[in-house]
Amino acid sequence: MAKLVLIRHGQSEWNLSNQFTGWVDVDLSEEGVKQAKGAGASIKKAGIEFDYAYTSVLTRAIKTLHYALEESGQLWVPETKTWRLNERHYGALQGQNKAEAAEKWGDDQVHTWRRSYDVLPPLLDESDEGSAAKDRRYANLDPRLIPGGENLKVTLERVMPLWEDEIAPKLLDGKNVIIAAHGNSLRALSKYIEQISDEDIINLEMATGQPVVYDFDDKLNVLGKEKY
Amino acid sequence: MAKLVLIRHGQSEWNLSNQFTGWVDVDLSEEGVKQAKGAGASIKKAGIEFDYAYTSVLTRAIKTLHYALEESGQLWVPETKTWRLNERHYGALQGQNKAEAAEKWGDDQVHTWRRSYDVLPPLLDESDEGSAAKDRRYANLDPRLIPGGENLKVTLERVMPLWEDEIAPKLLDGKNVIIAAHGNSLRALSKYIEQISDEDIINLEMATGQPVVYDFDDKLNVLGKEKY
Repeated sequence: MAKLVLIRHGQSEWNLSNQFTGWVDVDLSEEGVKQAKGAGASIKKAGIEFDYAYTSVLTRAIKTLHYALEESGQLWVPETKTWRLNERHYGALQGQNKAEAAEKWGDDQVHTWRRSYDVLPPLLDESDEGSAAKDRRYANLDPRLIPGGENLKVTLERVMPLWEDEIAPKLLDGKNVIIAAHGNSLRALSKYIEQISDEDIINLEMATGQPVVYDFDDKLNVLGKEKY
Repeated sequence: MAKLVLIRHGQSEWNLSNQFTGWVDVDLSEEGVKQAKGAGASIKKAGIEFDYAYTSVLTRAIKTLHYALEESGQLWVPETKTWRLNERHYGALQGQNKAEAAEKWGDDQVHTWRRSYDVLPPLLDESDEGSAAKDRRYANLDPRLIPGGENLKVTLERVMPLWEDEIAPKLLDGKNVIIAAHGNSLRALSKYIEQISDEDIINLEMATGQPVVYDFDDKLNVLGKEKY
């Protein structure tokens, strides 16, 4: 049966500076580039051959995919870039330093925004400076789909159509798929795949640049999960 | 009206060592990486925004596309990798040093293979070591489409369906398209676009990593051609 490999993008420049990132298009740090190449080397060593590749429309995930594919000798694999795999949109918190946010709103409030399943962060308005509505890469998207801020629940809801229409059919057809994306879009996907509860999902952590490999049976039940 | 940008991949390692390359998946040289990034910088300076990107299934063209898109701040643009944009397949000449080939077959013969429009090179057989039939990236291709060697005429014939079904409709719809590919697949495309004769086409040279920008009228007649 088919394999699905998930890779959280390598360390970004804002992981380093401890800022809320979300849909802001921050680049990989040097360490992040190394991690992405390392992921590719692990995939090559494991001998996994992909048929399809998916990533978000954010540079740090796209570059992680490219490094991983190139290092494993399969940069030619067809790739789809989609907003559905974007990081959770962090609303008005985007760009803020996490420590400063805690000072401004209090530790408990920021903790709730970061760790609850269904509490929304303070929202960005369409007219706000950093709104995705101003970004050309979302110009073909129904404007009602452009978020002002998301929780994990909303993130999962917009990831699911990609799973249902693209990923699951390919896995059922025996094709190997790689997805390079973000902490929360991959957490959402894993929640569905592993049927993790709303309460427990927040404890699932994915290391940056570490491939997670799922094996499935023919009903897409998980037979095995490995980390490289 | 829409713009079409063609980029021949940056210098490859075999451009450096003067070997026939064709469908062999040779990487960019350091100079080639610089050229690709330079192409991206020119595109950014010109302010060209792409809607779609196309490249071959060969690493040197894919990486050229990625560097050009990244440097111009649009790595998120949807991209299609297709064998139809591959370099001309050089048959049994692939891997040979050009000077050694001239010693073996004579200058005139090698010149004919390189410069004629419709003379085929010595062909590779399916069972030969370097045959594309053995390469996983062509596994979904009708085996009769996998060449043992091509001239420019055959290259043009297999590039055309991509133009007809994908590129031309997008340009007519006002979308800007970038194609990162190879000396001969781009020469073939330019032959059709500019309606160059079989005799004259061989004199069309494209510099590695230099974007060529076409503007069209609404019948896809060329209004302007610029090199950056």
